[in-house]
Amino acid sequence: MSQKFSHGEEHIDGEMIKVEVNLDDMPGEWLGYVMEKLFASGANDVFYTPIYMKKNRPGVMLQLLCDHTKLDEIKAILFTETTTLGIRYYPISVHRLARKFYQVNTEWGEVTIKQGLHEGQVVENAPEYEDCRRIAEQHQIPIKEVYRVVWEKIRDND
Amino acid sequence: MSQKFSHGEEHIDGEMIKVEVNLDDMPGEWLGYVMEKLFASGANDVFYTPIYMKKNRPGVMLQLLCDHTKLDEIKAILFTETTTLGIRYYPISVHRLARKFYQVNTEWGEVTIKQGLHEGQVVENAPEYEDCRRIAEQHQIPIKEVYRVVWEKIRDND
Amino acid sequence: MSQKFSHGEEHIDGEMIKVEVNLDDMPGEWLGYVMEKLFASGANDVFYTPIYMKKNRPGVMLQLLCDHTKLDEIKAILFTETTTLGIRYYPISVHRLARKFYQVNTEWGEVTIKQGLHEGQVVENAPEYEDCRRIAEQHQIPIKEVYRVVWEKIRDND
Amino acid sequence: MSQKFSHGEEHIDGEMIKVEVNLDDMPGEWLGYVMEKLFASGANDVFYTPIYMKKNRPGVMLQLLCDHTKLDEIKAILFTETTTLGIRYYPISVHRLARKFYQVNTEWGEVTIKQGLHEGQVVENAPEYEDCRRIAEQHQIPIKEVYRVVWEKIRDND
Amino acid sequence: MSQKFSHGEEHIDGEMIKVEVNLDDMPGEWLGYVMEKLFASGANDVFYTPIYMKKNRPGVMLQLLCDHTKLDEIKAILFTETTTLGIRYYPISVHRLARKFYQVNTEWGEVTIKQGLHEGQVVENAPEYEDCRRIAEQHQIPIKEVYRVVWEKIRDND
Amino acid sequence: MSQKFSHGEEHIDGEMIKVEVNLDDMPGEWLGYVMEKLFASGANDVFYTPIYMKKNRPGVMLQLLCDHTKLDEIKAILFTETTTLGIRYYPISVHRLARKFYQVNTEWGEVTIKQGLHEGQVVENAPEYEDCRRIAEQHQIPIKEVYRVVWEKIRDND
Repeated sequence: MSQKFSHGEEHIDGEMIKVEVNLDDMPGEWLGYVMEKLFASGANDVFYTPIYMKKNRPGVMLQLLCDHTKLDEIKAILFTETTTLGIRYYPISVHRLARKFYQVNTEWGEVTIKQGLHEGQVVENAPEYEDCRRIAEQHQIPIKEVYRVVWEKIRDND
Repeated sequence: MSQKFSHGEEHIDGEMIKVEVNLDDMPGEWLGYVMEKLFASGANDVFYTPIYMKKNRPGVMLQLLCDHTKLDEIKAILFTETTTLGIRYYPISVHRLARKFYQVNTEWGEVTIKQGLHEGQVVENAPEYEDCRRIAEQHQIPIKEVYRVVWEKIRDND
Repeated sequence: MSQKFSHGEEHIDGEMIKVEVNLDDMPGEWLGYVMEKLFASGANDVFYTPIYMKKNRPGVMLQLLCDHTKLDEIKAILFTETTTLGIRYYPISVHRLARKFYQVNTEWGEVTIKQGLHEGQVVENAPEYEDCRRIAEQHQIPIKEVYRVVWEKIRDND
Repeated sequence: MSQKFSHGEEHIDGEMIKVEVNLDDMPGEWLGYVMEKLFASGANDVFYTPIYMKKNRPGVMLQLLCDHTKLDEIKAILFTETTTLGIRYYPISVHRLARKFYQVNTEWGEVTIKQGLHEGQVVENAPEYEDCRRIAEQHQIPIKEVYRVVWEKIRDND
Repeated sequence: MSQKFSHGEEHIDGEMIKVEVNLDDMPGEWLGYVMEKLFASGANDVFYTPIYMKKNRPGVMLQLLCDHTKLDEIKAILFTETTTLGIRYYPISVHRLARKFYQVNTEWGEVTIKQGLHEGQVVENAPEYEDCRRIAEQHQIPIKEVYRVVWEKIRDND
Repeated sequence: MSQKFSHGEEHIDGEMIKVEVNLDDMPGEWLGYVMEKLFASGANDVFYTPIYMKKNRPGVMLQLLCDHTKLDEIKAILFTETTTLGIRYYPISVHRLARKFYQVNTEWGEVTIKQGLHEGQVVENAPEYEDCRRIAEQHQIPIKEVYRVVWEKIRDND
């Protein structure tokens, strides 16, 4: 995530870059690895889409977002870790909500809620997945049950 | 559709915006609803793509087109109706054919044909789906048979 | 296609096998080749589906149909040409329409129509793709135009 | 849904059939229509999967479930409404939870909850989508907000 | 994997079950968690396919393989961890190659090779992904380079 | 590929255009044909993505890259060969590696290797698929075996 903006305030980031690579000569096994490496290098989002390429090839389009100051570093990773000989990219704006974080208490411990605000209004309350997952694993509770208990608590705090 | 242009004339609209949102924490059930709401609010196209997101999550990318004057309204819907905390977008040009509409008669009633013209030449004759569907349902005829009868009529009018 | 049945008659073939293989360690490039090889070896249908496998791997499921007498040969191809260490399969019934073939004349030459009959009634008239494609290429006509002319002729023969 | 079983009781239905059709010569526009027609004719589930077929064709696999007594009727629809010349199918077992229905009250009216029970234990409480959608539309409330209010009520009833 | 068979010998396991669930009311976030839980409970393969469900819903089909003795346990996980009210399944045969394991030495350490044999012939030599990944991370070498070095060693051992 | 740049040198091409078309009223059969026609007309990349469109339609998004001087020609093909009434496009940069080609000798003949260089360093050695395929077919060798032999030779030449 770009350091130019405060997470506490809603903003439009006009300096992001969307990067795309089509891959048809690389196994899926490596792509799981490459996704992690790209996230670790500061890409904001990394995701794959199934595509149909020439000569009946099921391929994969890798897409990612990064700040324009990160572009060269990300390109270097793509050229060394994937099989591509070309990388496409274009500027893209990102409108990010103001974010606040707070805790809710459950019988199994605290869960962080990431709140999104649009023009000062709360429009989203997202329980942190890693907190919910940890509780589900430690207490052997269905993950959907953990979320429902947390959602109930969220409403109490509104 | 932007009101700046006459549908009767082929044109390039340089003021459209492509909007994208990645979603991995929202059920598909809601996405059917959101698609309708976005169309009703003036988005020109709304569609979903299956994507592979981090932590083994099958996600969905929502994409839509809208006029740049509609962008703020569309963003507000996305922030309130989906779970996203960020919206990406970039300018995109749209080249639209000139469109003419005419009727063909079938034994089951009239069907509207949407005609597309490129540099003054007819390049497409598209039967209106809703007309064909209504006939198929009312007369219990296979929809492929309705289209074939309509296509035959189209050729007579060329 | 199994030789036990006459194409001229509608039938249910209860001796077909559906075969499935999940692939995540093989590039898409090879899969285009493997598809052709499997068709050449007598598989009736071969197709790919994008799948989400463990460890964030975009994978591909290969599916094919073959007669049960062909199963060993098909397995041998899959084991030697793909990277899989296991092949899944199960019996599947196939209900095939009676098929008739006839020619229609267009201004660019003849096109074969494959007709499907269900309980003695014509339910489908499918122009042969390779005929339409050849005409489109040789005469530089849009392929959709070739099909529409052919569809018009089909109706005359009903 | 088969009438042999009481929805009130958990059961395994061993007389269902899974039906599959590959389609590469039929526009997506018709497939939306066909899905509705199949549901209306008593198919339990109907869904599409994107597939990669020969000659670089993006195709669609139609899959559906139906009771074995419905199979002939479903086949007739598929042969008349789609372009296929062959239908594949195989027996499949379906384990269905016991289902109970009850109402919860919200400030905007009642919502039905479909409850699923496995071996006598409640394992799922699913708000009826059509109820939630109607409230969201009539009261101009984000659909995710409607669901969250409803989920809160569900827990009170456990 | 079923314990009835020796991995050292090629065999056909006729007691496996393929399980399928369609999901349209559950976020992708939970599905990543569920995949792990199912693998941990002894499912042999777990994978997702994007599907198109009624009412414009992008859904996900969960598929897995398990031994017939594991079916009840797997069903219990699916009913408690997902939102489904029904589970489909059918018997499926799995033909597994004989497997042998051996080590190859690289300048960065040992890598295990999983070898597949069909009718006594080696048809596949698969480097263990976790070994290659560890080397790539520890030595900061592109993962494709690690595999190529390992493939070279494999051939020496043939 | 644009002729403005030497393939021998790494460069960023800032004059490329990404073109997109959504298709829901055209069979997959025609799309295989259109892909070939677009490649033959000078499009650099052409690929399809499965998308979910309104009214439960499984659709296809066609994407391609072309030089800005080719745009009008490509548009004309899309308008005449597909059913679309509108084409979207936006400028996109492409960073291409320097490319060198050399031959390796195998027991079955020569194979061309396409080498990619980033800032003067070799980052990719890609065997030409058509060479490998020809060998696999002529000598009846699994394609994966052909690639492995070729990869071994590549390393000798580094």
